[in-house]
Amino acid sequence: MSQTETRSRRPEPARPGRPRSARADEAILQATLELLAEEAGVAGISMEAVAARAGVGKSTVYRRWPNKERLIVDALAALKRPLPDPAGGSVRDDLLALAEAMCRERSAKHGRCLWNVLGGADKYPELLARYHREVIEPRREIIRRVLRRGVETGELRADLDVEAAIEMLVGAMTLQSRAPAATAPPEDLAERVVDTLLRGIAA
Amino acid sequence: MSQTETRSRRPEPARPGRPRSARADEAILQATLELLAEEAGVAGISMEAVAARAGVGKSTVYRRWPNKERLIVDALAALKRPLPDPAGGSVRDDLLALAEAMCRERSAKHGRCLWNVLGGADKYPELLARYHREVIEPRREIIRRVLRRGVETGELRADLDVEAAIEMLVGAMTLQSRAPAATAPPEDLAERVVDTLLRGIAA
Repeated sequence: MSQTETRSRRPEPARPGRPRSARADEAILQATLELLAEEAGVAGISMEAVAARAGVGKSTVYRRWPNKERLIVDALAALKRPLPDPAGGSVRDDLLALAEAMCRERSAKHGRCLWNVLGGADKYPELLARYHREVIEPRREIIRRVLRRGVETGELRADLDVEAAIEMLVGAMTLQSRAPAATAPPEDLAERVVDTLLRGIAA
Repeated sequence: MSQTETRSRRPEPARPGRPRSARADEAILQATLELLAEEAGVAGISMEAVAARAGVGKSTVYRRWPNKERLIVDALAALKRPLPDPAGGSVRDDLLALAEAMCRERSAKHGRCLWNVLGGADKYPELLARYHREVIEPRREIIRRVLRRGVETGELRADLDVEAAIEMLVGAMTLQSRAPAATAPPEDLAERVVDTLLRGIAA
């Protein structure tokens, strides 16, 4: 990994005095997502094409992102809405809020972007590793904290297999995005999955 | 849907007297998978390219498959090894055998083909519907039968939410194929997931 890999790569948040820069960042991320949804995969994306689609100069893109892999990870991160901060009530309420948020963020565009990237991701191991580290893992950590808290409060069994439970919850919420419209999952799937999971893990 | 949609589209099984035809079918399906893994998505595949890659005439492809959507669904079906026939011992043994089989079939090629197709699948609703009907649903039905038998024998709770349990089991086994090699799931994930699921659904 080069030295430049360590510098901050997140778009700076919009703030007074820098509206133009924030707007450019947003346009660049959206252009990347549009191209990801249209072109199939990482190979179909170039910094030039992103700049052209966003209506900015190529140097504006490079000023923030050193390469397209970094840009794509940030674009995928922007695609996911942040998971809600667990309210800290019952474990069931917190898991349900998280599961429902995962359900809501599924869309045709979301799936297309993600699959177009992940379909070729074995050719881009650094991109895949970064995506997991920066996008997936922080989300799993939110669920992990809820489960661990549940063990501490006695709501969940003391010998809970936290990682297996996360796989099942996230897996069930992710799987449904593959279904054709005709066999879309029921509205109450998040609740049914959480309750089925809890009956297994509740102390 | 045209009349031709109703005729049999499965490649005929190899049998004495038709070895050449069976070999051609196999070559065509493998060529389709190779192209799916290389080109990104359904749009990148043509009957011409498949015929050329398989070393057969275009008419040989069309003789068996009326269009590329049908061919792609059969190729994806060939990519999945059949799930083991549940032995009918304990529900835990049967679920574990199914989960481990789902684990084993995950590979870079498998994921790439599947994601390259599913990434653009909202543009091909008939392909997606057929894939679910002919490939996914029969596999889910095998799991469903094991769960229902478990309810009948009293191994599983009477009010079991069968569909939610299937989502969790299949979801957890599917999710792991997205992980980069560095964060590959533990060897015993199938067992841990089945046991976590059972503690929820065991009567």
